[in-house]
Formats: sequence, structure tokens, C-alpha cells
Amino acid sequence: MNDVHNFNAGPAALPKQALERAQKELVNFDGTGMSVMELSHRGDTYDRIHTHAIKKIRKLLDVPDDYHILFLQGGASLQFPMVPMNFLDSQATYILTGAWSEKALAEAKHFGKTVIGASGKDGNYKQIPALNQISEHAQDSYVHMTSNNTIYGTQWHAFPNTKAPLVCDMSSDIFSRRIPVNQFGLIYAGAQKNLGPSGVTLVLIQDAFLQRAKSGLPAMLSYDTFVKSNSLYNTPPVFSIYMLGLVLDWLEESGGLTEIENRNKAKAQLLYEAIDESDGFYIGHAAQDSRSNMNVTFTLANDALTSVFLQEAKEAGFVGLNGHRSVGGLRASIYNAVPYASCEALVDFMKQFKNKHAEKGATV
Amino acid sequence: MNDVHNFNAGPAALPKQALERAQKELVNFDGTGMSVMELSHRGDTYDRIHTHAIKKIRKLLDVPDDYHILFLQGGASLQFPMVPMNFLDSQATYILTGAWSEKALAEAKHFGKTVIGASGKDGNYKQIPALNQISEHAQDSYVHMTSNNTIYGTQWHAFPNTKAPLVCDMSSDIFSRRIPVNQFGLIYAGAQKNLGPSGVTLVLIQDAFLQRAKSGLPAMLSYDTFVKSNSLYNTPPVFSIYMLGLVLDWLEESGGLTEIENRNKAKAQLLYEAIDESDGFYIGHAAQDSRSNMNVTFTLANDALTSVFLQEAKEAGFVGLNGHRSVGGLRASIYNAVPYASCEALVDFMKQFKNKHAEKGATV
Ligand SMILES: Cc1ncc(COP(=O)(O)O)c(C=O)c1O
Ligand SMILES: Cc1ncc(COP(=O)(O)O)c(C=O)c1O
Ligand SMILES: [Mg+2]
Ligand SMILES: [Mg+2]
Ligand SMILES: [Mg+2]
Ligand SMILES: [Mg+2]
Repeated sequence: MNDVHNFNAGPAALPKQALERAQKELVNFDGTGMSVMELSHRGDTYDRIHTHAIKKIRKLLDVPDDYHILFLQGGASLQFPMVPMNFLDSQATYILTGAWSEKALAEAKHFGKTVIGASGKDGNYKQIPALNQISEHAQDSYVHMTSNNTIYGTQWHAFPNTKAPLVCDMSSDIFSRRIPVNQFGLIYAGAQKNLGPSGVTLVLIQDAFLQRAKSGLPAMLSYDTFVKSNSLYNTPPVFSIYMLGLVLDWLEESGGLTEIENRNKAKAQLLYEAIDESDGFYIGHAAQDSRSNMNVTFTLANDALTSVFLQEAKEAGFVGLNGHRSVGGLRASIYNAVPYASCEALVDFMKQFKNKHAEKGATV
Repeated sequence: MNDVHNFNAGPAALPKQALERAQKELVNFDGTGMSVMELSHRGDTYDRIHTHAIKKIRKLLDVPDDYHILFLQGGASLQFPMVPMNFLDSQATYILTGAWSEKALAEAKHFGKTVIGASGKDGNYKQIPALNQISEHAQDSYVHMTSNNTIYGTQWHAFPNTKAPLVCDMSSDIFSRRIPVNQFGLIYAGAQKNLGPSGVTLVLIQDAFLQRAKSGLPAMLSYDTFVKSNSLYNTPPVFSIYMLGLVLDWLEESGGLTEIENRNKAKAQLLYEAIDESDGFYIGHAAQDSRSNMNVTFTLANDALTSVFLQEAKEAGFVGLNGHRSVGGLRASIYNAVPYASCEALVDFMKQFKNKHAEKGATV
């Protein structure tokens, strides 16, 4: 099968242009006679790849000069303990908006006192807390939040103004829209949604926040090590960083974040409309004001039809529409590289499926 | 330039066959219409890739059934703190055979009491300690060693029989020869020398040793997490693991470890002979009985010729011959994927270089 619509939650669809470029260069990069995977991370050629990726990040995301741009490994999940290990002193506040926030909190508990600043848990994480619910937490080491909740399909559309440094897991929506980087002390994201393959974690850290980090940590678990070495303390994931650079080349050629943000909104709107106009056949999980433009989560009024939907969708060339194990139902992840046409195709499919199964859909 | 001889120390040469296969499949893996980089790590297709890599490791390295095979991130450098974090109780012994052993020891000091079991430091790490110098260390949490010293070019040709579990950093010689896995409690290796691209770390751990691991650690820093989840607790470095599988396919088709071990010995012998028969123009760093079959380190009697050698070698298509920053001189890393023909070419070049500069070579 060559015509698939990839709605995977991560690893996820990547831009065809980036993949084709990587394919072309895979055995012989830039006339070197070597693959990128065969390049020394201490050599000039890789240095250009590394520098290119960092430059593109700074430019496209408009990262202020006093922020360091780092590449780590271990995914967002390793950031969960690294953040408190480096920064948790008296107390840190965690805002709970989904399963990933909970995991971040659980890891912080190994390192010190934590407080829950706001939580959507009682409402099954359908809703993002209102901004005026978030205090300034002036005395805290930091406030931790998750910008987009991959599993529940909710997203912050504005960010709180805390006095404590704001730390944000942006794994599933970084580079999907413009963000006010200077509102954050630290931003982290696994690359495997909007940025590239799994195996590299992007970290942005404000220098003033870095100054508060603890010393005496193991080198690989200290942000300072990565700052001081330009993320070259040990061997970085060379090929993943190269791919990330290619993905950002595509993003820039596509018009940058303003354009991609518009496209993402349009794609999401298409799907949410199909849900809202289905006369209750499809039910959106997220509250309207908290809907994510990256992960559209919904259930079928008749849950018995879920497996039928997934089976028929699979046969029609749709990939990755199952909801997360912990929530069930359906989820369409529509990251940057998912084309508008794939969303249109999905909407068509949803309508046809509804027509075909309408009478059963009514029997909830 | 298309005809290069890649002697990089890591990331290093990979088998052409594996790279060409990856290139062919890069945009459309196995008829899925997706790149491996776009596959969900929870899906069937990736499951086959993951399982394939693990099976090949078990088969080719003859890993006993009571050993778990794990994929981590963060390189060997993250293993330096993870090993003591998980296992250092009363005391651990470190055998120092080079810069990487020293780094491993330095990280262990964050977690408890360490002892130096033997050290080649005074002799500038030219020699591997004799096996009878290593005690049994029955009371220790573990004994840590480095099987091949990438920087100094020395290698253990037999392993000590300790009573304490033996932990070994095999980053730069794993899969280059047969090894008695059952002599070790834990083996770790960054993939980027003999196994694939950087970004994945292979860990083998004996179940009996795992049982001694501490509990209450952050999930991502606990070996048990990776054992319980089959290395799928969070998103693994999907593409790196895929490449590792392709590299092992090549290794198997090349005759497996017995054959590759013979080839590696023959390649190393070629280079060491060229050094030994150079009438002192080239000087091997390692003592004869400790010479590595992976990293051939040498200096020029006239050190002023080193930069000339590197410049002329570069022009002749040789890559990566500079010694490590911390040691200087020259180093040819001749991992599995470096062809015999590249070693022949290097020997020819060394002879020509000597003839050309012979009179200057004498002026030490
Ligand atoms: C918001 C968020 N945080 C963290 C993670 C965990 O990321 P990783 O698998 O890179 O550790 C995910 C994975 O989907 C995520 O969506
Ligand atoms: C023997 C040995 N151990 C550890 C390392 C560090 O590996 P990494 O860069 O994967 O952290 C190296 C790197 O060359 C090495 O050769
Ligand atoms: Mg190198
Ligand atoms: Mg979530
Ligand atoms: Mg997935
Ligand atoms: Mg060494």
C-alpha cells in the first residue's frame, strides 16, 4: 500500500520532502562518500549539520538570545526526572492536564516537595484550567505544565503568567504554532511528533533559570553539561538531529510557524466540524474551549462500533486512529506533516461510516 | 568524493549493504507507505523490527536465556551513572584502563564508595592489567571494566573471573568477536561503533544481577523499567534500532562473529605490522600483548610530521585518522564495517609517506 493517511500519535507522519532528501543523501552525504550516520560528531561536516539545526530552531521559533538550545536523549520521559533533579529546591508546582503531566509529577516526587497547582483530573481531563486559576507561585522552584495533552486531546491556547519559572512539556505541539518563548524558563519536547524521528529531545532553557540549577549532578543528567558542550559532551544522536534539520527546512519553505499554525487550525476545524455535525454519532472528548489542534479525540455514541470503525478505516488506508490505551475511543493526530487532504479524506470516511451505520449509532 | 576510507572512531563506518537497504526502504518501509521513522512504536510493524533486532543479538552473540536484552538512550555515558545508581551498595571496584574507565569511575563517586581494582594510568594506559592482578572482590556490589579502550587502543583479550558481578563497557568492541556473556552481570555499549548509528545503547543484564537493583528510582533510570516493558516504556529510538537490525543482518550474512573476529584480527595485524616494520618511523602506543583489534593507535617519531600525515592522508581519501584530542598522534579505528581493502590502502599510504619523509622521520 502506498497511499496511506498517517494519523499516528508519535512517532508520526514526517514531511515527504524531508524523507526524500534523506533518502537521496543516505549513502553519500554532500559528496563526502559517507552516510550522515558514519560521520564523526567531532568533524566539520557534522558540525555544519548540528549548527544548522540549532540555527533553524532559533529562527523559526523566534528563540531569544538568552535561551540555550540543547539536544538530549531519552525522550520527554527522561526530562520528567531531570527537571526536578536540576531545579527542585523548596517546592515545585505541577498543573495536571493529563496522563503525561501526572507522570511528570510522579517523577518529581522522588526529588522533593510537590504541589498540585490545578487539575483537570476530576473532569476526566476534558478541560484546560482557566488562566486565572493559576497563581503566581512566586516562592516555588518552578511551575510545570503540559502545553498539549496528546492522550486527551486538549491544548492550552494561552499560557499562565507565573512568577516562578514556567517549565513546559511541549512534546506534542512544539513548532505547530508561534509561542512566547520568553514566558518560559525551560521548554522540552521529544522530537517524534512535529520535529523528526524519535531519539532526540529538544530543550530550550533560559540562561537565568540555568543559573539556579544544582551542581554536583552526574554529567549526563545536568543541563549545564549540555550547555557547556553545545550538546556534544558525548555522542549525540547524529542522524536524528540531521532529520530534525531537514524537517525544519521543510517548515521554513512551507511558510514558517504562522502559516503552519493556520494550516493546523484549518485541519482541526475540519475534523471538529465533522464531529459536531454528526448528530451525536461522534462525540468529541475535549471541551470546546480546550480542544487541541494536534490530537482530535472522540468516541462513538455506540462504543460497539469502535472496533468496526478501526477495521474499516484500516482497510481504507487510515493509520493510527485508535485512541490511547489508557482512554480508548478514537484519536486523529494531525501534526504538521499530516496533509489537509488526509483530514478531508478522514472526514469523508467518517460521514460514509455514519451513513452506513446510522441506525446502529442511535442505539447507545 | 565517493571513494573514502572511513577510520572514524565512532560514529563510524557502517556496512554498505545496511545503508543501501535503509535507503531503499526509507520512504516506504515494507509496503506500508510509511518510513520506519513514521511508525508507531506500539504498532505491529515496529514490533517486528524491535523483535528482529533482539533476536539477532541473542543469536549472534549467543546470549544466554537468563539475560535481558535492552535498548536505552543516552549513550554509554548515561550508563556511567545508571550502573551505580542501580547497583552500588557497600562498595564497587573500578578497573582503570583508559579515559572512559576514568569517566565511569567519576560518575560512580556520586553514588557511593568506590575502589580502584587495578590501573594502567601510570603507564599511560599502554597495558591491560594481567588477569592475576584482579582479585575476586566477593564483597563488592560489582566490578567495572572497559573491554576495549577506544582512545588508547588497548583491549582485554581475556576477562577476569570475579566473584562480584562483572560490569563491562563494551562500547567499542561488542560484536567484533565472540565473548563469554555468562561471565558478566551487565554489559553495555553505545551502538555507534560496530552496531549502527548513535542514539541507541545496548544493555545485556543477567536476571540474577537485576534482582539486586535498587527500587524507588526514577522510571527512566531504572533497568527494571526497561526489562518490564521490553524497552518500550517510552518511545524508543525506532530508526536506530531498525538500523541496528540491518547491521546485524549483514553480520550474519558475513558469517557471524567467528568470521568477523578473524577478519578483524587480519585487519589489525596488517596495520600493526606496518608500524612494527617501519624502523621506528611509526611507534605503536599500546604494549604488544594489549593491542586492540579495533583501534590502532600510533605516533610518528617526528611529531612535527603528524599534521603533514593527516593533511596528506585526507587528500588521499582517508577519514578519521587523527588521535583522540586527549592523546594526540594517530588512530585508525577498524570496526567491523571497515573493509580489509581500506586497511591495505592505509598501509600502502603509510609506506609511501615514510619513504617520502624518511630523512625527516629520523630527526626526532
Ligand atoms: C505530552 C507528552 N509528554 C511526554 C511524552 C513521552 O515522550 P517520550 O516517549 O519521548 O518519552 C509524550 C509521548 O507521547 C507526550 O505526548
Ligand atoms: C569505551 C567507550 N565508552 C564510552 C564511550 C562514550 O560513549 P557515548 O558517546 O555513547 O556516551 C565511548 C565513546 O567513544 C567509548 O569508546
Ligand atoms: Mg568520532
Ligand atoms: Mg495527556
Ligand atoms: Mg504512536
Ligand atoms: Mg580509552
